[in-house]
Amino acid sequence: MIIIMERGAAQENINKVVELLKQNEFKTKVNVGDLYTVIEGFGDKTTLTPGRIAALDGVKEVKTIREPYRLASRDRKEEDTVIGFSNGVKIGGDNRPVAMVGPCSVEEDYDGLLKVALAAKEMGCEFLRGGAFKPRTSPYDFQGLEEKALKYLKKASEETGLLTVTEIMDAGDLELICDYVDVLQIGARNVQNFKLLKAVGKCSRPVILKRGLSSTIQEFLLAAEHIMYNGNSQVILCERGIRSFDSTFTRNVMDIAAVPVIKKYSHLPVIVDPSHGTGQRYLIEPMAKAGLVVGADGVMIEVHHDPEHASSDGKQSLPIPLFKEVMNRINCLTDRLHYDKNCLSVNIE
Amino acid sequence: MIIIMERGAAQENINKVVELLKQNEFKTKVNVGDLYTVIEGFGDKTTLTPGRIAALDGVKEVKTIREPYRLASRDRKEEDTVIGFSNGVKIGGDNRPVAMVGPCSVEEDYDGLLKVALAAKEMGCEFLRGGAFKPRTSPYDFQGLEEKALKYLKKASEETGLLTVTEIMDAGDLELICDYVDVLQIGARNVQNFKLLKAVGKCSRPVILKRGLSSTIQEFLLAAEHIMYNGNSQVILCERGIRSFDSTFTRNVMDIAAVPVIKKYSHLPVIVDPSHGTGQRYLIEPMAKAGLVVGADGVMIEVHHDPEHASSDGKQSLPIPLFKEVMNRINCLTDRLHYDKNCLSVNIE
Amino acid sequence: MIIIMERGAAQENINKVVELLKQNEFKTKVNVGDLYTVIEGFGDKTTLTPGRIAALDGVKEVKTIREPYRLASRDRKEEDTVIGFSNGVKIGGDNRPVAMVGPCSVEEDYDGLLKVALAAKEMGCEFLRGGAFKPRTSPYDFQGLEEKALKYLKKASEETGLLTVTEIMDAGDLELICDYVDVLQIGARNVQNFKLLKAVGKCSRPVILKRGLSSTIQEFLLAAEHIMYNGNSQVILCERGIRSFDSTFTRNVMDIAAVPVIKKYSHLPVIVDPSHGTGQRYLIEPMAKAGLVVGADGVMIEVHHDPEHASSDGKQSLPIPLFKEVMNRINCLTDRLHYDKNCLSVNIE
Amino acid sequence: MIIIMERGAAQENINKVVELLKQNEFKTKVNVGDLYTVIEGFGDKTTLTPGRIAALDGVKEVKTIREPYRLASRDRKEEDTVIGFSNGVKIGGDNRPVAMVGPCSVEEDYDGLLKVALAAKEMGCEFLRGGAFKPRTSPYDFQGLEEKALKYLKKASEETGLLTVTEIMDAGDLELICDYVDVLQIGARNVQNFKLLKAVGKCSRPVILKRGLSSTIQEFLLAAEHIMYNGNSQVILCERGIRSFDSTFTRNVMDIAAVPVIKKYSHLPVIVDPSHGTGQRYLIEPMAKAGLVVGADGVMIEVHHDPEHASSDGKQSLPIPLFKEVMNRINCLTDRLHYDKNCLSVNIE
Repeated sequence: MIIIMERGAAQENINKVVELLKQNEFKTKVNVGDLYTVIEGFGDKTTLTPGRIAALDGVKEVKTIREPYRLASRDRKEEDTVIGFSNGVKIGGDNRPVAMVGPCSVEEDYDGLLKVALAAKEMGCEFLRGGAFKPRTSPYDFQGLEEKALKYLKKASEETGLLTVTEIMDAGDLELICDYVDVLQIGARNVQNFKLLKAVGKCSRPVILKRGLSSTIQEFLLAAEHIMYNGNSQVILCERGIRSFDSTFTRNVMDIAAVPVIKKYSHLPVIVDPSHGTGQRYLIEPMAKAGLVVGADGVMIEVHHDPEHASSDGKQSLPIPLFKEVMNRINCLTDRLHYDKNCLSVNIE
Repeated sequence: MIIIMERGAAQENINKVVELLKQNEFKTKVNVGDLYTVIEGFGDKTTLTPGRIAALDGVKEVKTIREPYRLASRDRKEEDTVIGFSNGVKIGGDNRPVAMVGPCSVEEDYDGLLKVALAAKEMGCEFLRGGAFKPRTSPYDFQGLEEKALKYLKKASEETGLLTVTEIMDAGDLELICDYVDVLQIGARNVQNFKLLKAVGKCSRPVILKRGLSSTIQEFLLAAEHIMYNGNSQVILCERGIRSFDSTFTRNVMDIAAVPVIKKYSHLPVIVDPSHGTGQRYLIEPMAKAGLVVGADGVMIEVHHDPEHASSDGKQSLPIPLFKEVMNRINCLTDRLHYDKNCLSVNIE
Repeated sequence: MIIIMERGAAQENINKVVELLKQNEFKTKVNVGDLYTVIEGFGDKTTLTPGRIAALDGVKEVKTIREPYRLASRDRKEEDTVIGFSNGVKIGGDNRPVAMVGPCSVEEDYDGLLKVALAAKEMGCEFLRGGAFKPRTSPYDFQGLEEKALKYLKKASEETGLLTVTEIMDAGDLELICDYVDVLQIGARNVQNFKLLKAVGKCSRPVILKRGLSSTIQEFLLAAEHIMYNGNSQVILCERGIRSFDSTFTRNVMDIAAVPVIKKYSHLPVIVDPSHGTGQRYLIEPMAKAGLVVGADGVMIEVHHDPEHASSDGKQSLPIPLFKEVMNRINCLTDRLHYDKNCLSVNIE
Repeated sequence: MIIIMERGAAQENINKVVELLKQNEFKTKVNVGDLYTVIEGFGDKTTLTPGRIAALDGVKEVKTIREPYRLASRDRKEEDTVIGFSNGVKIGGDNRPVAMVGPCSVEEDYDGLLKVALAAKEMGCEFLRGGAFKPRTSPYDFQGLEEKALKYLKKASEETGLLTVTEIMDAGDLELICDYVDVLQIGARNVQNFKLLKAVGKCSRPVILKRGLSSTIQEFLLAAEHIMYNGNSQVILCERGIRSFDSTFTRNVMDIAAVPVIKKYSHLPVIVDPSHGTGQRYLIEPMAKAGLVVGADGVMIEVHHDPEHASSDGKQSLPIPLFKEVMNRINCLTDRLHYDKNCLSVNIE
């Protein structure tokens, strides 16, 4: 840690910082400048957190050197994490990017879901996604079919061989959901619901963790750290748009650069969700491609058999015929992608 | 609802919108302009949500007239909500603004907590606050004393007569927490944890709901709506800073104008939390005053008997002697405040 | 315009709005709802601006239907604007995306600039860019070589056949700059410097207009409108990153989706600048590719013959050997791009 | 400067940093940690900027200790800057906060302006403000009366004894404007128009510098530094709202905490502009008070004799009768304010 003292900090306050560092077995160096004194401390931040020092009188700023996440960091694990499934599908590393598609919410009409699943299968997608428990900004919106939706997902999975993904909103539903689906999803609004992170950290299912609307990349990786710290290292990060000052044309701003940034600092797989990232049907294709070309390990796309009657988020869903066209072009791009590890870049062959 | 169609939208698409509105018993008017067609629909948005219409082909934008929250709105209830406690304390309306003070986290040292509680009592504060379950960005930070903390709060309450506030992070802890404290708090990170909002909506304790780091005012009021819709109308809103592009000098930007804005559109009480809102000890006093002068119904301030050894957020806590000085000046301001309903302004007598 | 009145607005106030609309020869319709009255007015917004109506008592909100920019809009001109140069280079429409490369600032060492220009030529780039007048956040930073830099650019252009681009910061420099360079650039900090927009609007050189750090897309297009309104329709828009809450890993957030959004609503060409958009050397390549794959008409990349001794922005510049590798891969992608107008998408052949 | 090297940086790269520091006569210290090497350099940052070092291979981050502004900093000048006028009015330090009022734009009707000026005089305000040259987002909006407006301001000043303020948008207008008005204003959109900052830096009129919509506090102070560095130390900073993710209820978010933050780090006077800061008439009074209670040296308020016919920004202007009521209450607050230097707080007597 580097501790910058306030201009003209009293010697007594400088001494207090040094003492506290020494009490916690930190090695310390004090550099007295014209105006500012800078103290360096090397030691174990689990015994003495930066916040403790920041609270001391006369301390202007405490700067840490090492990133605060550990298990999620490439400092700890150099090689890419690859998450494998029983049917041979793999996410991360040098594997072909995957596609997760399906309706925002699973609805009463099972046939509609099956149509989407069959189209997904036909287009070579690996995962069927659909909400059973829905986080809704307004209590007046559709809240999800709950267990019935889980049963539908499982049934569609059995009929098509697709793996399944659904969002978990409450630790209490964990066992139920694990009975039915292959991958759990933590939504953007729950990225700092630490009880939920802890709960999924204790189970053995892979978890897709969506970036919060205002999560910094560091906070996002720390949220992943909560899951990993509790025992589950199968975390897939998902960039799905952040909040900005302009929401006239797109719901959120997709932070495409977050993909190569995260891949530089973390070994975890990263996917992108252009449906939520933009909220606009016509932007799904270009933004999925943008994600893939910078190295995403997969895309998540909302597809509905009848978006005009969708109970949620129809505006950002592709109808099945358009989905097939779009997925065809995405597959065409994916076929040509070649990830070059040495220069952290994704190339077109 | 006002539906603006894309430039040159096909007549067929315009017809589809009109049909859907009519099927749902909306009265409709169609206005054809040079470039754009605008459709107005009047009806019950619980049967036909704006999102359904937005998903139709050719629809550019759907604009709703009425605010989407209802129970929280002054459209529904003109007079201010006042929340009363058994000891006569009241929050909201024309009542004197309250003060809620205490440490970020309740710690092992009960005497420390009692010192803070006694100082709070001495300065005329009404509430003792302290965290039992802590939401921590990093899994390596202190996570709270849980039930022991609740017991300490209750004990301190019994010794001083102060009412108590603590944060709830999980629906499963509701019963336990209600056994010990007077007011529940939902933290900024859980403002869209709908399971939790629903749970506290079903209990009879007043709830302090903190604004999320990136909650719009509308989303904030919709979160309150979730609680009210589930049966609990005793909601106190708390402005505690929003995320901005500049975090060099303050953790967040306190949106002081949110206080009079919310009071114009909602009848619920609003308090401010300058400790979290700024993250800086020296800004607690000025920003508490700024909140009061624009009409806040209370302030929440972190006070610690020994901030330099606080297990969390010492940097934004006042030590007891400084707290007394600051509270004295805040009381002095509060004594002079006079809320003038007719011009929505707070005056100095 | 759609005017939404405050809840329970007085009849007198409603009448005032209607009168004002009628005085300005707007056709009006008044729709009285349970709580809110909505007024529609159709007419010429140059005689009666939305702001005039918003200032009337009892008006809650004024919503305009048509986008406020006109000349820049596809409503006015359906086909893509293509900007051509005497040497046959074209920007926009179906033309191959261009590349503009060069140092942030032109420096004393002409040979260095020439080395960059020769490398650019070798890699098939069309434009040499370099700053002569530098906008610097701090007065203590390098401010540019001014006319000497312009002479260097011209000389390098003559030796290589590259077209040249430089930033203009003051209307007073217009004539001087036009003597030397082919394309003017307006920097992000000047996107709302209306005097400057007006000045370049009156000249005949193409203008690259950079999006401001906090420009909405609408404001960005309105800035272009200022230039076009003054007579210059050769405007190239440049997405170069917007300000967000997270600047730990990247200076700005590149709003890649802005490219297809702008292309949907405007006929002007759009390029991307990943050097300024990210501020990180390792992100230049992936983000240039992301821009191209969503339909950008060109990329602007900082290249320096010796970034470690650059007088500005070395951190986000590519050294020449790395530039050649990166440009090679970008060219490889560009070769395969195929822009499909019918579905607003860019495909890989 | 503190230089943090990338994890596992090559010794060669570490050496290069040290060499560059030494060549520039910096004293250096190298601290090798388990994963990261940290280098400290003490010396003159005008000869070696942090950006130069950041561009070296293997450098992760360069952290400067001292704030980058110097003349604007309290490090350089401890006591508050006070700006005095010939009629005895003073801004800053312990002086009574001032009020600057007037229409957004000076319009054709001189009598209207005079009415506002007389009301301002009557209420004890010191300054008349009004736009002669208007920065307008759209080219279709009113652009200002230019010299005629300056003449009107001067005439109104002569009739009332008020000092005058107007915005300058172009260095070329400097002489003209200085012939007529007492204080220059640099608008938010020009906060990084360095040519303009330089120009006003060379004149002897006090300058009100408005914070940019997305200026960090550090950038804001660096903009002031440009003016001071060029010779003019009479700079008044103005907080007028920053851009946030929520513009439904207010145009901008007023960063009230910026007032005490800036006052801690700079000696310059700070005023607030709640008209632009909120864009809403009903928020002018509370937000002006919030500014004063945290220590602002003045308020700037838009007043119009007939806001419903204002050529710009009527929505955020007070009509004269309401202005008198509001100003009366603001004066009442100001009378009671007592700035306590020792605890950086503003008290109510």
